[in-house]
Amino acid sequence: MTRSELVYSIFSKHSFLCTGLDTEMSKLPAPLPKNGDALVEFNRQIIHATLPFSAAYKINTAFYEQYGGHGWNWMQQTLDYIPKSAFRIADAKRGDIGNTSTMYARAFFETMDFDAVTVAPYMGEDSLRPFLEFKDKWIICLALTSNPGHADFQLNESEGLKLYERVINTVCKWGNENNLMFVVGATRADFVAQIRKQIPNHFLLVPGVGAQGGSLQDISRAGLNADCGLLVNSSRGIIYASSGDDFAEAAAREAQNLQQEMAALLQ
Amino acid sequence: MTRSELVYSIFSKHSFLCTGLDTEMSKLPAPLPKNGDALVEFNRQIIHATLPFSAAYKINTAFYEQYGGHGWNWMQQTLDYIPKSAFRIADAKRGDIGNTSTMYARAFFETMDFDAVTVAPYMGEDSLRPFLEFKDKWIICLALTSNPGHADFQLNESEGLKLYERVINTVCKWGNENNLMFVVGATRADFVAQIRKQIPNHFLLVPGVGAQGGSLQDISRAGLNADCGLLVNSSRGIIYASSGDDFAEAAAREAQNLQQEMAALLQ
Repeated sequence: MTRSELVYSIFSKHSFLCTGLDTEMSKLPAPLPKNGDALVEFNRQIIHATLPFSAAYKINTAFYEQYGGHGWNWMQQTLDYIPKSAFRIADAKRGDIGNTSTMYARAFFETMDFDAVTVAPYMGEDSLRPFLEFKDKWIICLALTSNPGHADFQLNESEGLKLYERVINTVCKWGNENNLMFVVGATRADFVAQIRKQIPNHFLLVPGVGAQGGSLQDISRAGLNADCGLLVNSSRGIIYASSGDDFAEAAAREAQNLQQEMAALLQ
Repeated sequence: MTRSELVYSIFSKHSFLCTGLDTEMSKLPAPLPKNGDALVEFNRQIIHATLPFSAAYKINTAFYEQYGGHGWNWMQQTLDYIPKSAFRIADAKRGDIGNTSTMYARAFFETMDFDAVTVAPYMGEDSLRPFLEFKDKWIICLALTSNPGHADFQLNESEGLKLYERVINTVCKWGNENNLMFVVGATRADFVAQIRKQIPNHFLLVPGVGAQGGSLQDISRAGLNADCGLLVNSSRGIIYASSGDDFAEAAAREAQNLQQEMAALLQ
């Protein structure tokens, strides 16, 4: 998906919501059996119900990978249910030496037709460049994450730059605002404001709103730009809004609540 | 596998060789068809031929993942052919927020019965701790890698420590020499010597010997300790030693050459 198609999707839905399909078998609503078919059917209904309110979907690969080859098939089936009009993200946090990263890129951009994959920057240039060679595909590079461990390395200062700032500066030399986004956690709106000054035009993928405690209002005030420039993810708050028969309607309601808040912020 | 079992395996084979099963379908020897069954059969023959000389095997997940769910099944079948007397590493470079890392740990330690998984440290403590909660399982944390991009971030100095040194110091607070190793590239033996001073007892997984240009002699002089303390990986140099009918014999010969060099170094 191109940047202009993504921006069109956001402004036509008045939403920069990314719905995270972090689906756990043990948390499937009581009426559903605990098996792979039910997990995919749950995802199908969640996608159908939230599609009017959600510009993007994010599939967390770990949730599927824990079931081995079967899980990978359920991930593929789930992806097939997400219309290509939505931006489709593999949250995989991959990154390896050049020839290996090429294979990860094939896995997510060719074998599976995701628009974007999250990547970890630790191994540097040749670990990220192979992903950037795929047309109309994106990497979303970890910069400042929302988890407690973000402080262990990402905030280390070297020659006047914190590690996450150096990551942003450096990775921006390899990609551009049409194929590169950054992951910035929602738990620190002040950091989002600083990062927006550093990269006025790039999109940011912001997890951590909802279950992890970030504020949509604060993040949006700090991060919105003329093209929106944000994809704000909510996973558990949407997909587990109800544990009963009405799980899809409840998910739609939660997604719509966020969409309405976002519509007001986009004006 | 426990540390003492690993050390026993190394000294009984007089080898600290790790054979890397980075198997590409396009590079299968001419006599084999280009399909998944042939890829698994190739791996089976390579494992059988190299087992007397190889203390460990490393499966690079990207090479299998590029084929989606099928590839994951081929990875599982390959793993099943590696006897549990060898140390079995998933080279996956995973790492995510706590509940997600728990699922990656389940994928590699429970669904698949690997002994160890490589992890990326960028997201800090809660991204690595879940892996360390599995009994007799190991993480192998990226420290100083062998690829050109290692210089982009890993060598940044902050408060007197390079990032990779800080990673080693910090991650050593979460794990110990019985469940934690580090990846240290073979292309810089001087760094291996420094790291050995920093962590005298931990095992190091050393890729980059052979195709990537590192010297086994230099690395061993710099890195061996009383328990050996090294696993040196070779992938392409072994598995593609011949592109003909004799690929297994050729792989055994290459592995044996390395084993004999290692036996001399271990004395």
